[in-house]
Amino acid sequence: MQKPSIPKGMRDFSPVEMSRRNYIFQTIREVYELYGFRQIETPSMEMLSTLMGKYGEEGDRLLFKVLNSGDVLADFTTEELAERNSLRFAAKACEKGLRYDLTVPFARYVVMHRNEINFPFKRYQIQPVWRADRPQKGRYREFYQCDGDVIGTDSLLCEVELIQIISEVFRRLGVRTRILLNNRKILSGIAEVVGHADRLTDITVAIDKLDKIGIGRVEEELLSKGFDDDSIARLRPFIELKGDNRTQLEHLRTALASSETGLKGIEELAFILDKTDRVQLFSELTIDISLARGLSYYTGAILEVKAMDVAIGSITGGGRYDNLTGIFGLEGMSGVGISFGADRIYDVMTQLELFPEESLVGTQLLFVHFSEEDADALLPLIQGLRAEGIRTELYPEAAKVKKQMSYANAAAIPFVALVGEDERAAGLVQLKNMITGEQESLPADAAAIAAALHR
Amino acid sequence: MQKPSIPKGMRDFSPVEMSRRNYIFQTIREVYELYGFRQIETPSMEMLSTLMGKYGEEGDRLLFKVLNSGDVLADFTTEELAERNSLRFAAKACEKGLRYDLTVPFARYVVMHRNEINFPFKRYQIQPVWRADRPQKGRYREFYQCDGDVIGTDSLLCEVELIQIISEVFRRLGVRTRILLNNRKILSGIAEVVGHADRLTDITVAIDKLDKIGIGRVEEELLSKGFDDDSIARLRPFIELKGDNRTQLEHLRTALASSETGLKGIEELAFILDKTDRVQLFSELTIDISLARGLSYYTGAILEVKAMDVAIGSITGGGRYDNLTGIFGLEGMSGVGISFGADRIYDVMTQLELFPEESLVGTQLLFVHFSEEDADALLPLIQGLRAEGIRTELYPEAAKVKKQMSYANAAAIPFVALVGEDERAAGLVQLKNMITGEQESLPADAAAIAAALHR
Repeated sequence: MQKPSIPKGMRDFSPVEMSRRNYIFQTIREVYELYGFRQIETPSMEMLSTLMGKYGEEGDRLLFKVLNSGDVLADFTTEELAERNSLRFAAKACEKGLRYDLTVPFARYVVMHRNEINFPFKRYQIQPVWRADRPQKGRYREFYQCDGDVIGTDSLLCEVELIQIISEVFRRLGVRTRILLNNRKILSGIAEVVGHADRLTDITVAIDKLDKIGIGRVEEELLSKGFDDDSIARLRPFIELKGDNRTQLEHLRTALASSETGLKGIEELAFILDKTDRVQLFSELTIDISLARGLSYYTGAILEVKAMDVAIGSITGGGRYDNLTGIFGLEGMSGVGISFGADRIYDVMTQLELFPEESLVGTQLLFVHFSEEDADALLPLIQGLRAEGIRTELYPEAAKVKKQMSYANAAAIPFVALVGEDERAAGLVQLKNMITGEQESLPADAAAIAAALHR
Repeated sequence: MQKPSIPKGMRDFSPVEMSRRNYIFQTIREVYELYGFRQIETPSMEMLSTLMGKYGEEGDRLLFKVLNSGDVLADFTTEELAERNSLRFAAKACEKGLRYDLTVPFARYVVMHRNEINFPFKRYQIQPVWRADRPQKGRYREFYQCDGDVIGTDSLLCEVELIQIISEVFRRLGVRTRILLNNRKILSGIAEVVGHADRLTDITVAIDKLDKIGIGRVEEELLSKGFDDDSIARLRPFIELKGDNRTQLEHLRTALASSETGLKGIEELAFILDKTDRVQLFSELTIDISLARGLSYYTGAILEVKAMDVAIGSITGGGRYDNLTGIFGLEGMSGVGISFGADRIYDVMTQLELFPEESLVGTQLLFVHFSEEDADALLPLIQGLRAEGIRTELYPEAAKVKKQMSYANAAAIPFVALVGEDERAAGLVQLKNMITGEQESLPADAAAIAAALHR
């Protein structure tokens, strides 16, 4: 006998939580499908050779590694063991790891199945990923990602569609959102114009901090990092960039006039704004040149979604990567994708009480079990109700009625049917509405009862 | 650069496979919910202390173990490493493992959440499990299970409902099935009557082999295993048991008259037959006393489902276990459950071509992309079509029309819309049915086009 526990950073999901999570997943799935995205799944485990080196040193450290089967230590020499190098040990003792995201497995999938795939390939994928991160509030070691990517075309209409998908998903979920949009080429252009094409990260960090610490402190920091006054002066127009999307684009066009790359980025942003103007967006779409996520892999658009009514980090993100499959030897495949963060969306919706009652798919009707004879007589009626699509239960035992009613209450079952000996003889069912307390007498007929439930 | 591969025994699922798999999962999910079952999920990893010792020695060996994070070898003494005992090493270097089935995690869930659960608890769970088995045709190292269990009541109405659920799932899927039903208590009764209560396995193996090797060889085998002529004579009525369910029950009643346990088993079987007689079953229900799966944990009903039109092993199985949560210190919780084998059901349905066309949720309508101007004008119409629920794509580039039509063909998209300059000027859409080749001219109106697609 042992007191069971659960691995830290991991979670059980109760029926109510599952109903809500499914509501989110189902919404995302339907919208992806309306846009022609098709679902794939990849195995939970990948070869570590597929995963290692794709997420930086930190990422490698956070991979969950699976111990090889069989007599693992038999493969090691005494010297190897004596060395006590855990990293080298793991590299030999573990050939598989749990996937860290859905992007690298997707790239691996595209390369392995390139002869069956109909390009451009629009795929979505909703599966858990694992990271051996330090668990903390809102951060888990197992969580779902909901990715959509288009691969095999560099058409910016894909960016436009992904923005429409984000907008439609959050319209359906009722979450007011702002989509922040940037382009890696603009960031590169800024670094060029500033005269430090090689110091993209320092520059973006500086732009990003403006809101929090003010322009004076930002400039101090840049000085301390070795930027000279001239560079800082050239950075200033970008730091001070203000106004609506079109105004920002105008200013950028001037400020980046000397950078071909920068101008290309502006053109791409302008294209996306032009096309999204032609459709209805529920989300706000805002250019934000301080947005600098995924700099190590994004090459074009960068986007991020914020909930407008809850202070929480990004709830969706994405961007374009020009050579995702290059790491596996397939060059020239441009892709663009987004990833919905199901857990944060869940938290936002819980906080704003946005889950509709219908999302709770519990039992609609419970038949009280008075006696074996009464229950026997109910079996065909209950089968008929299920055939009518009514989620119906018969309490499995002739327990005290009070206990059965408590069960219905605890499960939030909205209707209870009572058929005792008298009702049975008369061919009737007493139907009790558990919310209003009203009770009505109905013929013991599936269609009639189903109709009463739908009233 | 590296040629990517996938861990052996594991699979990618393509869009077509996913559509079909989802069709199966969705059917199972809907039926479970009609019967009042509610979904839960548990983490992919469990503490190895939760998993070890629950599946026998063989099961322990087949568990995938996850290497602890950090400097694993630092915890080991030089002596421990020199010992080279891989089992003891793993016990210390791995505290977590991937779940092997959904039953033990469910038991763990019930014990940990017993204060929140509303008993009797009807739960379903559709998640992958992992086993480091030798991969072979139809056997994988990662596969989905679709379990439904009722815990917290010993009412045999649960067995009846599970049989109805099986019948309804396979009715919906169009798979003709036979449900084989037995009871552990009958097997115990037979062993008692034969005079070898302790040799249940040998006896059931003998009964099971009858079909394959004939009664003569079965008796030889029993003799060689040390059973005497008397015991074999007492076993003969069971081996020769024939006839319909009621006839078999009658014979068993006589043959097991001296075993209280055996008679209890008969009573339970009779109850289930009586109740299922009151409802319509699509599946055949057959008593089969040679059915002996899960003898190490089932204590009452044992059931197994065979497809009638394909020679394949069991496609669903289940039974009652009287004390599932006892291993975690919660006594007296009787449970009964079933598990649908999604992979085998998939194979059966593929072989019999049972997947309906509607199960393939691909794009319904592709708009050919002639030029940026033409495409621009289409964006609002396409948004309107998606709002009408039509899964619609715009080809992302102005590629050659032939290439775009090939894309539509390869993706089995049933309708293609052509809007060139002339159509655009006239406010028309040429709608081509890709199956019949027919083409019609329609107003560029979402509702009109949606109606044409539904005709």
